[in-house]
Amino acid sequence: MSIDPIFVLAMMGTAVFALSGAMAAARQELDIFGFIIVGLAPAIGGGTVRDLLLGAEYVFWVNDLSYIYVASAIAIIAFFQVHRLDGKRYALLTWADALGLALFTIMGTQIAVDQDLHPVICVMMGMITGTFGGMLRDIICNEVPFLLQKEIYALAAIAGSCAYLLLIYLGLDDQGAMVIAMATTFIVRGLAIVFSWSLPPYRPKGSS
Amino acid sequence: MSIDPIFVLAMMGTAVFALSGAMAAARQELDIFGFIIVGLAPAIGGGTVRDLLLGAEYVFWVNDLSYIYVASAIAIIAFFQVHRLDGKRYALLTWADALGLALFTIMGTQIAVDQDLHPVICVMMGMITGTFGGMLRDIICNEVPFLLQKEIYALAAIAGSCAYLLLIYLGLDDQGAMVIAMATTFIVRGLAIVFSWSLPPYRPKGSS
Amino acid sequence: MSIDPIFVLAMMGTAVFALSGAMAAARQELDIFGFIIVGLAPAIGGGTVRDLLLGAEYVFWVNDLSYIYVASAIAIIAFFQVHRLDGKRYALLTWADALGLALFTIMGTQIAVDQDLHPVICVMMGMITGTFGGMLRDIICNEVPFLLQKEIYALAAIAGSCAYLLLIYLGLDDQGAMVIAMATTFIVRGLAIVFSWSLPPYRPKGSS
Repeated sequence: MSIDPIFVLAMMGTAVFALSGAMAAARQELDIFGFIIVGLAPAIGGGTVRDLLLGAEYVFWVNDLSYIYVASAIAIIAFFQVHRLDGKRYALLTWADALGLALFTIMGTQIAVDQDLHPVICVMMGMITGTFGGMLRDIICNEVPFLLQKEIYALAAIAGSCAYLLLIYLGLDDQGAMVIAMATTFIVRGLAIVFSWSLPPYRPKGSS
Repeated sequence: MSIDPIFVLAMMGTAVFALSGAMAAARQELDIFGFIIVGLAPAIGGGTVRDLLLGAEYVFWVNDLSYIYVASAIAIIAFFQVHRLDGKRYALLTWADALGLALFTIMGTQIAVDQDLHPVICVMMGMITGTFGGMLRDIICNEVPFLLQKEIYALAAIAGSCAYLLLIYLGLDDQGAMVIAMATTFIVRGLAIVFSWSLPPYRPKGSS
Repeated sequence: MSIDPIFVLAMMGTAVFALSGAMAAARQELDIFGFIIVGLAPAIGGGTVRDLLLGAEYVFWVNDLSYIYVASAIAIIAFFQVHRLDGKRYALLTWADALGLALFTIMGTQIAVDQDLHPVICVMMGMITGTFGGMLRDIICNEVPFLLQKEIYALAAIAGSCAYLLLIYLGLDDQGAMVIAMATTFIVRGLAIVFSWSLPPYRPKGSS
């Protein structure tokens, strides 16, 4: 019996994103159902928006319950254990989130490519898959989305998505392109974490 | 001429949920169009999200305008009369909302069952139909969703939805299963109202 | 070579709505990706919600990238230049927004009419196309939607949409009906801007 490595990575990404939702639920001091709902939002939200925009008959998690099971399990465990996440483990979570971003972005790009959509749309669908779940999480929790404020985050998704398209165009096989593209997103995001890279925000003229 | 009892209940649920939206609009001191928009959100929002997730060609209210008419009429009446809702009538509204929750949840579950979806998805679709309209209302009004904070609410939806699936599985006819399942949600929610039941929220370790 | 006047107007509406998003992004002091995301929300959000509700296979901008290009370009230009919008130019923007509202509303109505939907649904789809993008912009930026607070805005959309349906019903050709209906929305909104018309908000009984 062999295990599909893509599936393993997808479940890891789901788990990590669900944990980010559970941590937002902890900040709001929600009950266990609040943890599950706010945990599911980032874990399946980005892919759900992508599926709606691309007119999928059923959104992806209706046909594969693994995403729901993994995200709910993580949210329930987090409800009882999230206070144990001290500083060091929190840093680990940031890195795991970068891995989830890399994976979901490239998977979303790939789905759009399979439908022969325009490269610009493929990159947008990659970015939406990777980042809109977190945006939904923040909207539900009544916060200004992290995506909009964060150091380099959307850019890392876009970089990986463009790398995937370029490598496929250059004739690389799909698996090789996925690995390199995921690495691109992960490394760009990782460098941004390590060096606190950020893009310059808009500053009103008067302020200095 | 006979009147479909399900239709009557659906319209009652729509009216009550629209009223909950109108009361949120009153808190924000909106104009009459604000009342209609924020009244429609809880009345048709949950079923709309369900229809989008299940890939319905048109969302349900496009093909049956009764929902729009009833919700808009309630919002307009509420705009002129909502100040008359004194304490006693407000309590009545809480109970009417419990009825709306019971009805919409079981109707949503039933729609998913009719499409032969997995029981877990059927329960999720029931809960989404019953509760996501209120969540949309709160997001539009820029509040942390009530659904996430409330004493037992989502749990009542899930209990009724599971009861429906169990009764159908045990061979009960559809109408009987619906009545018992709706009663389950209504009673669980009602007990939560009477005894102020709530699930324990997450508490940070340090606070006590 | 001839240029389709509808297309020119659609691009103008897209540009103006994207600028309204960029100005919201400037208030939040976002980076350039924040400008693009919050610029795209009002520019393509209303039509996207309409397409989802009507079960379109792909949302409109997947098949015509002009909307994405124009909105992104405006957002990027605005990132560098929005501080130059002094008072006078800001007034110009309000008028340009009224034009965008007029155009998007009538285009949305027309799409629903082409699908032989009920007149009430056609007016709703017109209003959703014209106004929900701005509502999404405000939800993403964690503000109570402008749509709900504003002087006459949704009403202007509804007036133009009803005018379109009436004129088509009376046998006017499509192009003539579009022009008059757009003018109706633009004039109602324009009068509201000039005379600061607003509908009376709900006031709690006690306050006076």
